[in-house]
Amino acid sequence: MKKDHKISEGALFTDFYQLTMAQLYFHMNMHEKQVQFDYFFRNYPDYGKHKAGYCVNAGLEWLLSWMKNTRFGKKEIKYLKKEKSRSGKRLFSDSFLKWLEKNGNFKHINLQAIPEGRVIHPHIPIVTAWGPFAMSQILESSLLNHLNYQILIATKACRIHEAGRQKTMIDFGMRRAQDKGANAGARAALIGGADFSSNAGISYFLGYRPKGTHAHSMVQAFMALGHGELGAFRAYADVYPDDCLLLVDTINTLESGIPNAIKVFEKLKKKGHKPLGIRLDSGDLAYLSIQAAKMLNSAGFPDTRIVLSNQLDELVIWQIINQIKNESSRYGVEADTLINRLVYGVGTHLITSKGDAALDGIYKLTAIRKAKRWIPAIKLSESVSKIINPGHKKAWRVYDKRDKAIADLLSTDDEDPRKKNIIRLRHPFDAETHKTLKKSDIREVEPLLMDILKDGKLVCESPAIEKMRNSRQKDINRLDAGVKRLINPHVYHVSLTQKLWDLKQKLIKEEQKGG
Amino acid sequence: MKKDHKISEGALFTDFYQLTMAQLYFHMNMHEKQVQFDYFFRNYPDYGKHKAGYCVNAGLEWLLSWMKNTRFGKKEIKYLKKEKSRSGKRLFSDSFLKWLEKNGNFKHINLQAIPEGRVIHPHIPIVTAWGPFAMSQILESSLLNHLNYQILIATKACRIHEAGRQKTMIDFGMRRAQDKGANAGARAALIGGADFSSNAGISYFLGYRPKGTHAHSMVQAFMALGHGELGAFRAYADVYPDDCLLLVDTINTLESGIPNAIKVFEKLKKKGHKPLGIRLDSGDLAYLSIQAAKMLNSAGFPDTRIVLSNQLDELVIWQIINQIKNESSRYGVEADTLINRLVYGVGTHLITSKGDAALDGIYKLTAIRKAKRWIPAIKLSESVSKIINPGHKKAWRVYDKRDKAIADLLSTDDEDPRKKNIIRLRHPFDAETHKTLKKSDIREVEPLLMDILKDGKLVCESPAIEKMRNSRQKDINRLDAGVKRLINPHVYHVSLTQKLWDLKQKLIKEEQKGG
Repeated sequence: MKKDHKISEGALFTDFYQLTMAQLYFHMNMHEKQVQFDYFFRNYPDYGKHKAGYCVNAGLEWLLSWMKNTRFGKKEIKYLKKEKSRSGKRLFSDSFLKWLEKNGNFKHINLQAIPEGRVIHPHIPIVTAWGPFAMSQILESSLLNHLNYQILIATKACRIHEAGRQKTMIDFGMRRAQDKGANAGARAALIGGADFSSNAGISYFLGYRPKGTHAHSMVQAFMALGHGELGAFRAYADVYPDDCLLLVDTINTLESGIPNAIKVFEKLKKKGHKPLGIRLDSGDLAYLSIQAAKMLNSAGFPDTRIVLSNQLDELVIWQIINQIKNESSRYGVEADTLINRLVYGVGTHLITSKGDAALDGIYKLTAIRKAKRWIPAIKLSESVSKIINPGHKKAWRVYDKRDKAIADLLSTDDEDPRKKNIIRLRHPFDAETHKTLKKSDIREVEPLLMDILKDGKLVCESPAIEKMRNSRQKDINRLDAGVKRLINPHVYHVSLTQKLWDLKQKLIKEEQKGG
Repeated sequence: MKKDHKISEGALFTDFYQLTMAQLYFHMNMHEKQVQFDYFFRNYPDYGKHKAGYCVNAGLEWLLSWMKNTRFGKKEIKYLKKEKSRSGKRLFSDSFLKWLEKNGNFKHINLQAIPEGRVIHPHIPIVTAWGPFAMSQILESSLLNHLNYQILIATKACRIHEAGRQKTMIDFGMRRAQDKGANAGARAALIGGADFSSNAGISYFLGYRPKGTHAHSMVQAFMALGHGELGAFRAYADVYPDDCLLLVDTINTLESGIPNAIKVFEKLKKKGHKPLGIRLDSGDLAYLSIQAAKMLNSAGFPDTRIVLSNQLDELVIWQIINQIKNESSRYGVEADTLINRLVYGVGTHLITSKGDAALDGIYKLTAIRKAKRWIPAIKLSESVSKIINPGHKKAWRVYDKRDKAIADLLSTDDEDPRKKNIIRLRHPFDAETHKTLKKSDIREVEPLLMDILKDGKLVCESPAIEKMRNSRQKDINRLDAGVKRLINPHVYHVSLTQKLWDLKQKLIKEEQKGG
């Protein structure tokens, strides 16, 4: 490879039409015009048999890092100079490229955002960006790329973590991820609910201990050399006496793997070490974990962990736990004690968000500045649910007296629902659906968007991942149980204030006339 | 961010257990033992309502590039020194880390592989790697990561390209990909069937012209400024008179978008330019493309292209084409002429392989060298379909007298089915299913695996992507139509020779006794 692969990760990590549009704005003298874009999603992930009732925010810090380090440099300009029109002439003019080389950075972008780790809902802007038109437009593709995927995975990780009763969950997904996207996925998983990742490099980078056991190939090698499974386990215990976690299903879990593991554990115990546990990677994991618990308990190892892996997701884990609750007592195993010693290694279905591998997040023009005034922008659509909410807005979360979140609310920029005695909640697009809340019903109205970038300068440092995890858990605890149901969740209220609803209707009417 | 993000893309881009296993092999003095791993998949992607009957190989060149540039350097060793056991002691010994710093590279790995772009099938090794145990083991995670995703996407791209009758297809998926995984996805899409990508950087890097039109936001901005859709189209035509492709669905496709586009096209035509076409991004794309064709034809623009986008995949495209064939004549539009001017922009469903977002490719120990002899290794499994095919093997493709591929065949390393008068095809795991081919039925028996790395040295340069595309098309043409069906494809024969079958049965019996 003669060209440097890095060229594909900087300013040219974008859809080509962003560049041709930017040049058009330049030649129309619109490139420095102030515009605002909102980033939001319209639908929760729908996994087919089940569906999310909330999402978890993630990805912002990596987007900001990309924006900080990215500009159109000599290499990018050189490539753009080579681009040809169908006529054979150059596609990008010298004047535009000269401007781009000087101004092709994100130093004049302003950003408000909901912090990473927070629970988020449809239609509410997760990021609002405003600044000069050309660079705000060019930002679109990379912003969508960074945020859509990490929100998708943080959400899936949260569902899996909740299904597993918040017990230890490890990301095993690297081998089924999209190339280096594995690293973004591991980060999002950690924010959303994974406690660790098997991915060594990104764990180190983010300050987490990478986790893992061993593979079948290790046991196979010992077998091929005539030492058998027991030989493999003994070797592992010799090298890792204090971290001995054995994969017991290479030959036969109940007849070979667990008995051999117990032999090795007994020897470790005699030497004063505490064996860590076993991993089950095939078969009926609920049945096998009950039998494994029974055998380990009888042998005097009730504290060892039982790691489950193999195509796990939130529904599989939920059913394993149900099966254990129904079945374990007949084998003399206490269900809750067993459930509490389980650890989940979740790979493919976490890193690809099994059932719905993409979030439909979009970045839409919502306002444009003209003669010192911000004009709200709207895009009509045949589907009313797709009509955007125009203009500068504020986003709020309303908590009731139980301290449960009951609605997210979008208002115009000059409203403060905290100061109102009555809040009218309008459905974003259904005129018939509205609701009124009295101040006495409300415990708190919380603003969701924070200032992140002012003129390209970071005004709010990204929190540590541990802090993101804490705010996620706090938000999850403040959600009604119905919203958290894995299947057929209760629909959370996302609403507009009366004033924003009126503005939207006014613009729709004007556009319908004007169109 | 204080640490360098690059640490997560080099030698530590691996599952942690590969490193703990490597240390175990080191302390057992097995680390330099020669072993062989096979990379293969067990099942074609299953998209739910439809299923693949073949896959397209991709990803090898990027894997080789990673292997070439990757080693355990000072930074990686420094990190590993910090890893602690549960006991608080260091997890990795000085002696192992010293060995790893000196030998932690892929310079002694040998690789045979099926070339990129070739059609591939289950159970047949796509890559066979052999070399010292520790580094062959560490290779696993990155190899799976690089190959699983690109094969998945090349396969999806091929299906979409075939469904679209091999007409122009453009990857639009960057915004829904897994972070920088978008670049690997675009590359795989180009190998598999996409003609272009909207992703600017990776297109440049790979030597393709990036493609795109414009977004709704451009039209919206002109509308908010009082210039309307027509103003936006005029501006676009002024700046790009020879590349004028207009997105016509911002307001109303048939009543506003297309009439306005035609006005602009007429002006371009008068000035001697040839308008490029329109893009439809919402609504009933079959119906709208018929109406668009009718309007463009009447206005004297029968050669303009009609680009379709919005949640396309192979089934949607197949149905659009069917609907056009059934319906267009009643509107006075010739179906085939219309179908030939269509261009497909395929995003989310291509880059995430909608319906099945992961290939189940695995990397399994198949042989180990002991006292100068290679011992075939086997892993028993409760599911016979999961028992691996042991030992050093050769892979072959058998073509019949029609020049159609009728079977892929695995043999032992010392067999050459080209020299046999009769070939017995054994099902990989079903003892009852076998078939006999006579030499007179066969036109060609083609070896599939090529030497790629000998002792870490590249002995076969990666072909250009154009060449990969050609071999893909050649392979696709040599597949029976039934295998290429989108839904319920005919199952292609994957077989073992009698000798390999016998070896496998012998090893299974030995293991069952030994276990």
